[in-house]
Amino acid sequence: MKFLRIGEAGQERPAVLAADGTLREASTLLSDVSGAALSDLPALGPEAIAALPVVPDGARIGPCVGQVGKLICIGLNYSDHAAESGMAVPEEPIVFMKATSAICGPNDPTILPRGSQKTDWEVELGVVIGTRAQYVEEADALSHVAGYCIVNDISERAFQMERGGQWTKGKSCDSFAPLGPWLVTPDEVADPQNLSMWLDVNGQAMQRGSTATMVFGVAHLIHYLSQFMTLHPGDVIATGTPPGVGMGMSPQQYLRAGDVVTLGIEGLGTQRQAIVA
Amino acid sequence: MKFLRIGEAGQERPAVLAADGTLREASTLLSDVSGAALSDLPALGPEAIAALPVVPDGARIGPCVGQVGKLICIGLNYSDHAAESGMAVPEEPIVFMKATSAICGPNDPTILPRGSQKTDWEVELGVVIGTRAQYVEEADALSHVAGYCIVNDISERAFQMERGGQWTKGKSCDSFAPLGPWLVTPDEVADPQNLSMWLDVNGQAMQRGSTATMVFGVAHLIHYLSQFMTLHPGDVIATGTPPGVGMGMSPQQYLRAGDVVTLGIEGLGTQRQAIVA
Repeated sequence: MKFLRIGEAGQERPAVLAADGTLREASTLLSDVSGAALSDLPALGPEAIAALPVVPDGARIGPCVGQVGKLICIGLNYSDHAAESGMAVPEEPIVFMKATSAICGPNDPTILPRGSQKTDWEVELGVVIGTRAQYVEEADALSHVAGYCIVNDISERAFQMERGGQWTKGKSCDSFAPLGPWLVTPDEVADPQNLSMWLDVNGQAMQRGSTATMVFGVAHLIHYLSQFMTLHPGDVIATGTPPGVGMGMSPQQYLRAGDVVTLGIEGLGTQRQAIVA
Repeated sequence: MKFLRIGEAGQERPAVLAADGTLREASTLLSDVSGAALSDLPALGPEAIAALPVVPDGARIGPCVGQVGKLICIGLNYSDHAAESGMAVPEEPIVFMKATSAICGPNDPTILPRGSQKTDWEVELGVVIGTRAQYVEEADALSHVAGYCIVNDISERAFQMERGGQWTKGKSCDSFAPLGPWLVTPDEVADPQNLSMWLDVNGQAMQRGSTATMVFGVAHLIHYLSQFMTLHPGDVIATGTPPGVGMGMSPQQYLRAGDVVTLGIEGLGTQRQAIVA
């Protein structure tokens, strides 16, 4: 199934995507797409979904997971992206965090922070944790997944790289983590390591890739992270980005107010962000 | 006032410290010491507090703030700590994040993560945000503070420094962020930049310092962070540690199962952690 959250920011309610492409209210099925509910998401057939009330036209789509506890990101996790960044493929996963206050809906505008000169894009496969995971074996790791979604790991490169120390400052700005549109349950994702992914700026192709070229796959990442910290339902892992970010271009290219970013991952829908000052 | 949270992990309820040193139930005053409640904490006199019911003996003290949205840490923010770490005083604040899943009560045991060889201590002044702060001026910054508390920014140095990339892995282990015992409201903290602080291991003095030697003070940190991300009620800033961490010793000294860490900050109470495997 494909779960969404609709409504104004902070007041989203659950919905599901029906086979006919309409959004259906799911408040009778679960209170929210968050926390403990992620360990036991309802599984309805197409007919049962079609019987749910249609969401009114024009409803805002919020982030597909609510109350995210931690938003963990993996750096340089595609060998070809590492190359374009001029950095070595890491020997073990590079882990950093984005502030959860950066999370927004998949089609919300991207707000350039004051002084931003180098705001960049990164289409990524997001993995949403459904059950508590601590010291899990790689073989068991995928059983902890509630579903998958798109994350745009938006990054201000000057804040990230040129302002001292860690990456946090360039990764955590408000609106820098659009999640969704859908949380797609694992039964609808045949192989998370074989999903094509793309990102365009103003209709021009920027990123083209596949999760097939990840250095560390989803199962390994869950295993690996669970050695350092317990993963809880509602935690999200952004698994890294394929080549084609603005920082890797010659000359480098960054986002300006008025630009429009569109992106998608096979089977997980699309996002669209208007860039605003 | 001094607010606490008492009860089993995940089921804490609010309490306050009375003038006679007893803990008093405060569930009639506020639902929790978290989120929106932090912007409007009740202010009771000693007599009104003394009229509240006494908390039963032996109750666990939880982290003094619930539902922390982000736990932001400042690196190398004491000039003498930077020196002992062999690192330059930063030109602007070094910012990183600990996973909020690391947060625990002030006297909960510290669990050494599997494979830990270099688990270290860091007594720090914690600043709890009470009201939304975005692009705030330094002069207005302290008006966004709900209160102060102790944070032990426990750190596995090998995970932090020797496992590739960012510091997250060594900072985010479960139980690595004891908060409390109290959230002390600003009216009871005459000057957050003049608080003595200490940490002992097995009764031996390790850290001795004062918030007077911070490189970037509390008001500047709130101003600075608010340029990169919006601070929300319940966010916590751990403002860095004075000299005396195990990594800075010669030879280096780290925590082993059976050790006991005690720490305190002037006016903010004390913490005690037993180290367990």
